[in-house]
Amino acid sequence: MSAHARGLAGVPATQSSISSIDGEKGILAYRGYSIDVLAAHSHYEETALLLLEGELPSARALSAFDAALRAQRVLKPEVISLMHALPQNGHPMHMLQCVVASLDMFYPGEISQPTSARAYADPDYVRTMTIKIIARMPLLVAYWERLRRGGAVIEPRAGLGYAANFLTMLTGKEPEPFMARLMDACLILHAEHTINASTFAAMVTGSTLANPYGVISAAIGALSGPLHGGANQRVLDMLDEIGSPGKVKGWLDKKLAAREIIWGMGHREYKVKDPRAVVLHGLIEKLVEHRGGKVSRYYDIARTLEEAAKETLAAKGVYPNVDFYSGILYHELGIPADQFTALFAVARSAGWLAHWSEQIADNRIFRPTQVYTGEALREYVPLKDR
Amino acid sequence: MSAHARGLAGVPATQSSISSIDGEKGILAYRGYSIDVLAAHSHYEETALLLLEGELPSARALSAFDAALRAQRVLKPEVISLMHALPQNGHPMHMLQCVVASLDMFYPGEISQPTSARAYADPDYVRTMTIKIIARMPLLVAYWERLRRGGAVIEPRAGLGYAANFLTMLTGKEPEPFMARLMDACLILHAEHTINASTFAAMVTGSTLANPYGVISAAIGALSGPLHGGANQRVLDMLDEIGSPGKVKGWLDKKLAAREIIWGMGHREYKVKDPRAVVLHGLIEKLVEHRGGKVSRYYDIARTLEEAAKETLAAKGVYPNVDFYSGILYHELGIPADQFTALFAVARSAGWLAHWSEQIADNRIFRPTQVYTGEALREYVPLKDR
Repeated sequence: MSAHARGLAGVPATQSSISSIDGEKGILAYRGYSIDVLAAHSHYEETALLLLEGELPSARALSAFDAALRAQRVLKPEVISLMHALPQNGHPMHMLQCVVASLDMFYPGEISQPTSARAYADPDYVRTMTIKIIARMPLLVAYWERLRRGGAVIEPRAGLGYAANFLTMLTGKEPEPFMARLMDACLILHAEHTINASTFAAMVTGSTLANPYGVISAAIGALSGPLHGGANQRVLDMLDEIGSPGKVKGWLDKKLAAREIIWGMGHREYKVKDPRAVVLHGLIEKLVEHRGGKVSRYYDIARTLEEAAKETLAAKGVYPNVDFYSGILYHELGIPADQFTALFAVARSAGWLAHWSEQIADNRIFRPTQVYTGEALREYVPLKDR
Repeated sequence: MSAHARGLAGVPATQSSISSIDGEKGILAYRGYSIDVLAAHSHYEETALLLLEGELPSARALSAFDAALRAQRVLKPEVISLMHALPQNGHPMHMLQCVVASLDMFYPGEISQPTSARAYADPDYVRTMTIKIIARMPLLVAYWERLRRGGAVIEPRAGLGYAANFLTMLTGKEPEPFMARLMDACLILHAEHTINASTFAAMVTGSTLANPYGVISAAIGALSGPLHGGANQRVLDMLDEIGSPGKVKGWLDKKLAAREIIWGMGHREYKVKDPRAVVLHGLIEKLVEHRGGKVSRYYDIARTLEEAAKETLAAKGVYPNVDFYSGILYHELGIPADQFTALFAVARSAGWLAHWSEQIADNRIFRPTQVYTGEALREYVPLKDR
């Protein structure tokens, strides 16, 4: 046994009022509101403001926030030029981590970054930067999609809400309201999830009073890993590898015997099915109904896999997590698999920024300690004597 | 009192054998070797290999590592084009965080990234990526310096060691051996420092199995903050603000009364003068002697400030840290102040990568918990009823 909790499991790293998880009951709540209710009744703009400010907004506050987001739906042409200088076969998450880190260089004068913790936590500074980042993230992802396809970029449409505009810019056509609503629900479900690795990376980076673009860039880097947000892309690869519902059982037995990862299954915090997977599963069912049964074979394979895993994995408390069904929905929305994690990043920017704001409002730089297992002090030996 | 340790102070987040600090005695050791000895006898290549592999290398291993580093001292012209697309008045740390994050896009085929933790910790993969990153970091910083000055970039010189080549590429002229040796000592002193915020950001990001370029980019973001690496640039601004040794006392009294930060003073880990500051102070003394007394007024002001602070700050255990004297040395080496933190990042890449390697060799994703202080579950209220 080591004298530290590996991965800091169970160790409180902060006080927070942003979201809470009941892993036994399978409840995730943002500021006290269960996410199934938010996915059904709220939209991303409202949920983002709830996460950032702590309360469901008044009609007036919501409308002002929405207007501010729409006003910031614009990027300098120089940022697009930077994206042109990146290899188009590169992964969207690398593009996103890179370009977000550059934004302070392109927008240096828009608001000056304070250097004392007190000034830095100024609500005006935090609110301004938060709106700019949440508004710009989908533009980067959507422009990149169009650029790498060699097509013209689709300009933002001021008349559309956050989800519908994002889908339009991504796919090149305005979605029917049903599909825009699905996208909106996906964004809500991915907006926040307590202190996971990417949020924690944002907090650690933010605690040095680094610029918020640098903070979000670091979080994007953490999210890109296959053990974190990178998993949703891999679920679709996995379903492709399985091939058909009839092959699920044999495939699963082989994977379990080899102790290999089943992507989209299991979560440290939940002893039951991830509440986000429950909602996403329900959304796919609605989509199947909406489409008169016509959805991709991915759903049949995934459903069969969830059933087959009940005997083995569920018995050990391993159930589908948020990544298990989200990719299938994104696929139905016409989004390529390597963009799934970038969509996750766009949605999660609200949660990251809420934690950034909470961190700097009562800041102490993160500097944990270590259990030192190395050599005691020893004498240097010159090269010729080694 | 909160139920968590703010900033995780005193909480062990990992086991590590890379470096150790004795805060009472003022000792920092890399793998058991005290840094004052390493600064006097080692060079950056040897120190980096010591950090990465755990032992002082044999002549043969060192020569192979050195040759590998020199062979990787090259960047595709497309990376330089990307740098051209960045605003030249932007901060070097933003450039560095951005461009490092992009490198996997430019070098996708050079080595494929494994997705299981076991394969990812493969020593060959780790060694290859480590060499590539350590070799390329100074190129990015030096190219940027030349580009933003509007001059031609200086190509790497295979005949020069790491420190001398870096200085040459940065300043445009080959340094005299005495100055190259100063630079080398600075790189050694900044190479590693246990689990500080940027190293921790690298560990958290790396624990998701994110690409190592993404890991180092995240660490650069954390280092850029003024409460972390960003402080060395601010020390020089502060010395400028003071203006002359005669004004130190009055300036200090005012700052202390206003409870403002004195840049370059104090460190959570040390109860005495930071051992790196001790070595740096000694190096400046040598430089003064070498130059027959001709160094900038910064040194006189800094020395006076350290003396003046003895009565007030030192009594509370607040002494000069690594940032207090490093900027003065860099200034004497002809490096502009806004590059100081980028130099820190170049040096620290060895430590970050050593911790990344240690993390993925026994990985568990970082997911600490929180003390939830927010609302209990509550009912959603429709917008019209708010």
